Amino acid sequence: MGLVVLKFGGTSVGTVDKIGKTADQAIYEKKQGNKVIVVVSAMGKSTDKLVAMAEEISEAPDKREMDMLLSTGEQITIALLAMTLKEKGHDATSYTGWQAGIETEAVHSNARIADIDSARIEAALDAGQIVVVAGFQGLTADDEITTLGRGGSDTTAVAIASALKADKCAICTDVVGVFTTDPRYVKKARKLEQLTYDEMLELANLGAGVLHPRSVEYAKNFRIPLEVRASHEQESGTMIEEDLTMENTKVVRGIAFEDQITRVTIHWKQKEAMRVSKVFTKLAENNIDVDIIIQGITGLGHGNLSFTIKTSALLATLAVLEESKELLQIEKLESEQELAKVSIVGSGMVSNPGVAAQMFEALTENNIPIKMISTSEIKVSTVVPARKMVEAAQVLHDQFELDK
Amino acid sequence: MGLVVLKFGGTSVGTVDKIGKTADQAIYEKKQGNKVIVVVSAMGKSTDKLVAMAEEISEAPDKREMDMLLSTGEQITIALLAMTLKEKGHDATSYTGWQAGIETEAVHSNARIADIDSARIEAALDAGQIVVVAGFQGLTADDEITTLGRGGSDTTAVAIASALKADKCAICTDVVGVFTTDPRYVKKARKLEQLTYDEMLELANLGAGVLHPRSVEYAKNFRIPLEVRASHEQESGTMIEEDLTMENTKVVRGIAFEDQITRVTIHWKQKEAMRVSKVFTKLAENNIDVDIIIQGITGLGHGNLSFTIKTSALLATLAVLEESKELLQIEKLESEQELAKVSIVGSGMVSNPGVAAQMFEALTENNIPIKMISTSEIKVSTVVPARKMVEAAQVLHDQFELDK
Repeated sequence: MGLVVLKFGGTSVGTVDKIGKTADQAIYEKKQGNKVIVVVSAMGKSTDKLVAMAEEISEAPDKREMDMLLSTGEQITIALLAMTLKEKGHDATSYTGWQAGIETEAVHSNARIADIDSARIEAALDAGQIVVVAGFQGLTADDEITTLGRGGSDTTAVAIASALKADKCAICTDVVGVFTTDPRYVKKARKLEQLTYDEMLELANLGAGVLHPRSVEYAKNFRIPLEVRASHEQESGTMIEEDLTMENTKVVRGIAFEDQITRVTIHWKQKEAMRVSKVFTKLAENNIDVDIIIQGITGLGHGNLSFTIKTSALLATLAVLEESKELLQIEKLESEQELAKVSIVGSGMVSNPGVAAQMFEALTENNIPIKMISTSEIKVSTVVPARKMVEAAQVLHDQFELDK
Repeated sequence: MGLVVLKFGGTSVGTVDKIGKTADQAIYEKKQGNKVIVVVSAMGKSTDKLVAMAEEISEAPDKREMDMLLSTGEQITIALLAMTLKEKGHDATSYTGWQAGIETEAVHSNARIADIDSARIEAALDAGQIVVVAGFQGLTADDEITTLGRGGSDTTAVAIASALKADKCAICTDVVGVFTTDPRYVKKARKLEQLTYDEMLELANLGAGVLHPRSVEYAKNFRIPLEVRASHEQESGTMIEEDLTMENTKVVRGIAFEDQITRVTIHWKQKEAMRVSKVFTKLAENNIDVDIIIQGITGLGHGNLSFTIKTSALLATLAVLEESKELLQIEKLESEQELAKVSIVGSGMVSNPGVAAQMFEALTENNIPIKMISTSEIKVSTVVPARKMVEAAQVLHDQFELDK
C-alpha cells in the first residue's frame, strides 16, 4: 500500500465524460490499495474563455483579479470530479488550493509554492477518501488567492507528493510518455522507459512540451519519482528519477527541436567598446528572453555578438536596441529569421566527448548547415535553417540509434 | 458621507458590457462621497450551465460539491467587476464569501449566515477602495464552502449592511422598484415609494419575485433600510423600512398573485379519526410545502381537510397520501388543479376590519368564485380559478384605488 498523486491536465477533464474516465483511473489506483490524491487543471478551454472576458475589459487586466478569476477554473473541475467519484460509490472530497493548505509567495499570476500544510489532506486520506485538489492555485500568508503560472498544476502535484512523501507522482496527459523525439514529425520516435531528472529538464527546456521545467526541477530537488503517462489507459509511461539503473543505456536519450527562432547579430563600433552586459541588461529589463549567445572577435579590431530569441520577440528586441544604439556603441544590427534549434540530450554525454563531433558530422554529411552551437554537460544544441529542422531530427535519431 | 451596500443580480452582470454599467453605478455612489460595497451574483445563466453539468453526472449531486461548484459563479463576477473598476481608474478589491468573513452554519446548499467578520472589508473601505463581494456564499467554521440558497445574494448584501451599520442597502435589479401589482399583467400598476418590512415580506412570500423573503426578514430584524431599484438608472426605487411616515397611506398597498396552485381535499372515514397533524408531518417529511389549510366538519359525522400546494408537487403529494391511506384513515382524496392565489397586502389592515369583506364583495360582483380564503394581520389571500387570476388582480387594483 502506497500513496499516489495523479495529475490530470485540462484535456483529460475537458468534458463530463472525460471526468468520468479520470474518476475511473483514480478508482483503479485506489483499488490497488493505494491512498490516492488527484490534482486537476481547469476543464479544456475554459481558462481561455475567462481570459477572453478579461481582455474585453482591459488590455492588461489587474493581476490580482486575474488570479481571482482563473482560479475558478480548477474549482469547477474538482467539484465535478469529486461528485463523479461519489456517484461511482467512492468517498471523495475536493479542496481548493487554499483548502489544501498550499501557501505561496505574495506574487500574482506566477507565484511559487512557499509551504504546504497537508493536515487536511492527510485527515481525509486517513478517513479513506480520494482527495481531489485544485492545481495551479494557492493562497498567500495574507489570504490572497494566487496562481502558479504555466505548468502550475504539475507543480502543485509534485509539491503535494513531496509534502506527503508520496511513493509516486503520475502526470497523466494526452501522450503515453516521453518520446525520444516528437513522434508527430519523426515516425521512428520511441517511448522512453526511464529518464533522469536532468535529461527531462533539458528536454522540457528545449521545447518538448510534455512537462513544465519547473515541476521537473521541483521533483528533482525533492527526489519525487515522476511518471509521465496517458490519462485514460493502463499502459505504463515514462519514469523520471535519479540515474541509478541507467549505466547501460544510450549516451543520447532524446532529441528536442523547436522552430520560430531568430538570430540577432550586433556589430560593435570597436572591440574596446563592446557593451555586452549592458545589452542583456536592457533586454532583460524589457522581458525579452535570450537563449543561445555567441561572441566573436575578428582580428581587425571589430567584434560582434550573436544571440537567439523567439521570432515573436524580434520587433521588441530591435526596438530596444535601436533606441539605445548610441549608448550601446552599436554600429550595425542584423537579424536572420526562419531558424530552428535542434538538440541532443543525454546524461552520458559528460563522459563521452565524441558525441558533439558525431552530431556535427551527421548534420554536415546531410547538407544541414549549422548556424550556431551551444553545449552543456548533458546536451548539445545546434541552430539550423527551419526548413531543415525535421530532417535534422530524423538524421540524429538514426545516427544515435534511438529507435532501438 | 455614508456607507452604501449595492447588490446586483445575475442579469445586471450578465455580460462584460453590463458589468461595465454596474461599475459606473458603483462609481456614481462613490463620487457622492460614500464608502461603497458591491455584492454580486453569478453572471446571467452561468449557474444554470454549472447545474446542467452536475446533473449530467448525478441525479442528486452531492451537496458539498454543488456548493464548491456553484460558488465559482460569483467569484468570476467579482473578479471581472473589480477589474473593470480598476480599468475605469478606481481602486477596488474583490473578496470571495470566505475572504469577506462571511461565516455560515454547517449546512450545504441552503446555509444561514452565522456571523460576519468585517475587518477585511473595513480595512479596504478605509483605504478608499470600492469593495466587491461575492454574494450567495460563505464558509463554515470548518473551512467548508457553503451557499445560501435562493435569494442568497440579497441576504449577503443585507447581512453585510447590518454588520457594517450601512446607511442603505440597495437591491439593484431589472425592475425600477416594487409595484402595487405585477405591471406585466395589470397596466395601471404603479411603483410604490415606500413599504414596511412586513408588507414587503408578505408580498415576497405571496409570489412578488423582486426580493426573497429571507433577505427582507434579515433587513427587518436588523433595521436595515432597503431600496429596491433599477440596476443601471439613477431613478430612485422603492424604500423598505419601518412604518414611521406612513400614517396617511392607503390600507391596501399591493396585490400579489401566482398561478400553478392545486387544492387537495381529504375526506376522512369518520370525524373521530382525523389524522390532521399526521398528514402534515408526512408531507413535511417528503419536503412538500403546504400553503393554505382549511378544515371543515359537517353535521353528518364526516370531516374533510383541504390544503393548497404548488401544482408541481401534486404527483408527489398524492403518492405520499395514497401510500399511507390506511394509516391516515383517509376515505377519499380529491384534487382541483388550475387554481391561483390572489392576495391583498397592507399594514393598515389590522385596524380596518372591513377590508376583507370589501375584497370578497368586489370579486363576487365580478363573478370571480372564491374557493378558499386565508388571512393574516396584514394580508388576505383568496384562491380563485387560474383563468380569473389577472382579472381578479385588476378588479382589486381598481377597488382599492392603487393607481392613485
